[in-house]
Amino acid sequence: MVDAVKRVAVLGSTGSIGRQTLDVIRAMPHRFRVVGLAAGKNLELLAEQIEEFEPALIGCPPDTRDIERLKHIVDIKEELLPLDEIAASTEVDIAVIATSGKAGLRPTLAALRAGKNIALANKESLVSAGEIITREARESGARILPVDSEHSAIWQCLSGEHQEAARIILTASGGPFRQFSHKQLERVTAAQALQHPSWRMGKKVTIDSATLMNKGLEVIEAHWLFDMPYDRIDVLVHPQSIIHSMVEFSDGSIKAQLSYPDMRLPIQYALSYPDRLPNPQLPRLDWSLGRSLDFEPPDYDKFPCLRLAIEAGRRGGTYPAVLCAADEVAVELFLSGRIRFTDIAGAVERTLAQHRLISNPGLEEIEAADSWARETLPEMVSGVT
Amino acid sequence: MVDAVKRVAVLGSTGSIGRQTLDVIRAMPHRFRVVGLAAGKNLELLAEQIEEFEPALIGCPPDTRDIERLKHIVDIKEELLPLDEIAASTEVDIAVIATSGKAGLRPTLAALRAGKNIALANKESLVSAGEIITREARESGARILPVDSEHSAIWQCLSGEHQEAARIILTASGGPFRQFSHKQLERVTAAQALQHPSWRMGKKVTIDSATLMNKGLEVIEAHWLFDMPYDRIDVLVHPQSIIHSMVEFSDGSIKAQLSYPDMRLPIQYALSYPDRLPNPQLPRLDWSLGRSLDFEPPDYDKFPCLRLAIEAGRRGGTYPAVLCAADEVAVELFLSGRIRFTDIAGAVERTLAQHRLISNPGLEEIEAADSWARETLPEMVSGVT
Repeated sequence: MVDAVKRVAVLGSTGSIGRQTLDVIRAMPHRFRVVGLAAGKNLELLAEQIEEFEPALIGCPPDTRDIERLKHIVDIKEELLPLDEIAASTEVDIAVIATSGKAGLRPTLAALRAGKNIALANKESLVSAGEIITREARESGARILPVDSEHSAIWQCLSGEHQEAARIILTASGGPFRQFSHKQLERVTAAQALQHPSWRMGKKVTIDSATLMNKGLEVIEAHWLFDMPYDRIDVLVHPQSIIHSMVEFSDGSIKAQLSYPDMRLPIQYALSYPDRLPNPQLPRLDWSLGRSLDFEPPDYDKFPCLRLAIEAGRRGGTYPAVLCAADEVAVELFLSGRIRFTDIAGAVERTLAQHRLISNPGLEEIEAADSWARETLPEMVSGVT
Repeated sequence: MVDAVKRVAVLGSTGSIGRQTLDVIRAMPHRFRVVGLAAGKNLELLAEQIEEFEPALIGCPPDTRDIERLKHIVDIKEELLPLDEIAASTEVDIAVIATSGKAGLRPTLAALRAGKNIALANKESLVSAGEIITREARESGARILPVDSEHSAIWQCLSGEHQEAARIILTASGGPFRQFSHKQLERVTAAQALQHPSWRMGKKVTIDSATLMNKGLEVIEAHWLFDMPYDRIDVLVHPQSIIHSMVEFSDGSIKAQLSYPDMRLPIQYALSYPDRLPNPQLPRLDWSLGRSLDFEPPDYDKFPCLRLAIEAGRRGGTYPAVLCAADEVAVELFLSGRIRFTDIAGAVERTLAQHRLISNPGLEEIEAADSWARETLPEMVSGVT
C-alpha cells in the first residue's frame, strides 16, 4: 500500500458526482488532496469549495461573464485555467472527470495524452468518442478508471482474472416506470420521472434512467471500457440496485459486485485503486432482516431508448455522438414540458434516421455530428419550435 | 496460459466428488490426465476407472481383503500404493483429496509436505487438523485449493484483491427443512433428509446439510483456508443456492460468485487455476425468465448443529476433531433409524461437553480425540448400544 497523498483534480465539482467526490476526499484527508476544482454552474458552491480546499488550479467557467462573477464571490489569486490544462497538469495525480455533457471530452483526452489516469464519470465523452479515447489511453498507457457504479462493478469483478470475460451482465434498476403500461408512460410528468427509486443523481441522468437510455449509454461505455463485443453485453433489470453488475467467465462462473446504491463507493474505489480504504461513511449492506434480489429481462418495447442506444453503439462511427446529443435535447424538451415522456425515444430515433454516418470520425467530425443533432432534434418533434 | 497437461491423482475416485472430477477430466483431455486413482468402496467402479484411465498409481484399499478382490476384477500390473505416497509422488502435479472422513488427512499432509498443491474436497481433515495442515502449507509454500462450492466462491472473490477481506459471508441453502417447525423436525426420516433441494451429494454431507452441521464445518474450514477470525465469518441462508458465497472488503464493497449448483465448476476451477477453461458441459446461468435470490439469517435455535460447530471452532484444539467424529457417528445412527433427526445435535453436544480439550494438539492427539468421540457418542444417546 502506497501511503502517499494522491493529488486530485475534480472537474465538475458542483454536480452530484463532483460533490460526492469531495465527500470522499473530506473523509480521508490523509490519502487525498484536492489540487484542482472546476465547475460551469453553481458558482456560489464552487466559491465555497475553493475556500475550503484552496486548490492551486481553478477552472475557467465556460461562460466568460462567470469569470468576473466568480472572482467577485471568492478571492482568487491564481489565473483561471482551461479544463484540459488542469487535467494534464503535472500537479495532478488523478483527474475526476465529472463534468456533464460534451465538456468532459477535451479534458479526458488531455489527461490521457499526458499519461495520467482519469476517474471517468462523464458518460457522453466515452459514448461519443470511445474509439478516440481508448486509442489515446492505449498509446499513452494511462488508464480510464470508471466511476459509474455498473462499470466499477465490472472492473472489480474482472480484478485478478487472467482471461477476458465471456459476458458482461449490466444490471439496471428499471427506473420508476418499470411496471407502467404504455398508456401510463405517455402521461408521465417531469416531476414523476425525477423520482428515481434507488439512486439520487442529476436531472439528465435521472430521466435517462427512467427511459433506460442511461443503460443503453452504459452498454456503449462497457463496450469501450472492457473491449467487449456488443453481443456479449446483456442488460438485466434488477429493481433493488444491490448487484451493480456481473461478469461471466469462460467456465460459466459469474462474479457480481454488491453494495447499497451509493456513488461514493465507486468514486472512492477509482481514487484509491488498487487499494481499498475503510470509510465509516460508506454504509455496509445489512442482511440481518433478510433480503430478496429480483432479476428480469428488460422490456425493449416499452423502453425503446435502450434498443436505440445499443443499435447506435453497434453501428458506431458518429451515431453514438448523435444519440447522445439528440437525447440531451429531447430530455430538455421533456423537462420543460414541451414533449411527452414517450416522445423522447421517437425524437431521438428520427434524428438518428436522418443522420449520415461517418465511420472512424475524428474529434471535429464528432463535434459536428453533435451540433447537427442538437439542431436537428427539435425539427423531429411535431409542434416544437 | 500454460498449455501443459496437468497430471492429476484422484483420491476417493468413486465418491460423488471423485466421479465429478473424472467427468471434468474427461471433458478436457488436452489439459488433464489421470495418473493416480484410489478408492475404499465400490471396487467395481474403481476397476472400471482403472481400465478407462490406466493410471500408473493405484491406491491400496484400506481393507486388506479388498486388495485381492480388486486384482480379481481388473488386471493390475502395478503395486498398490498407500494414499499418502500417491499424493506426494513426483508423477503427480495436483492431488484431489476427495476421500471421505479422516482418510483424507494423511495424504493431505503428505502432498503439502512435498510442496504439492492439493484440491481439497475432504472437509474433515481441515476441520480436525486445520492448524497442522495450514502450517504445513505455509512452510512448504504449497497451496490448498478449495473444492467446496462455498470456499471456491470466496477464493474466486478474493482473486486480485490487494487487501484481506473484512468479512466472509458463507451462504447456505438452509437444507430441505428450512421452514419446518421443531415438531416437524423431530419426525424427519432418513429418506426425507436425503432429498436435498439444490445439491446432489453423498449421504453424510446431505444429512449434514439438513442439520446445517455442514455449514458449521464450512465456517471452520473458511477460518483456516482464509485465515479469518470467527467473528468475521457470517452465515446467510440463500435457498436457491445460486450465490455460493460472498466476500466483503474494507470499503464495504461485496463480491459474490454465482452459478447453478454444480460441483464440476469448483472442481474444474481448482484443477485449472489460475486459468479458467470453457467446458460446454457446465451449464450457464439463464436469466431470461427472471429470477429471485432470497436471503435470510439462519435459525440457530432450530438448527443447533450450526452453533455447535462454530463454538467448537472458536474453542479450537481437539474440539473440532471431536465434533467431526461425533457427527459422523450420530449421522450413521440417524441413517440406520436408531436416533431421531433432532437427536443428532444433542448427541454431539453431550459428547463435546464430555471432552477434555487438548490445545495445540499433534496428529496423534487429534486421532485419539477422534477415536474417543466415536466410542463416546453412542453412550450419549439413551437407548442406543
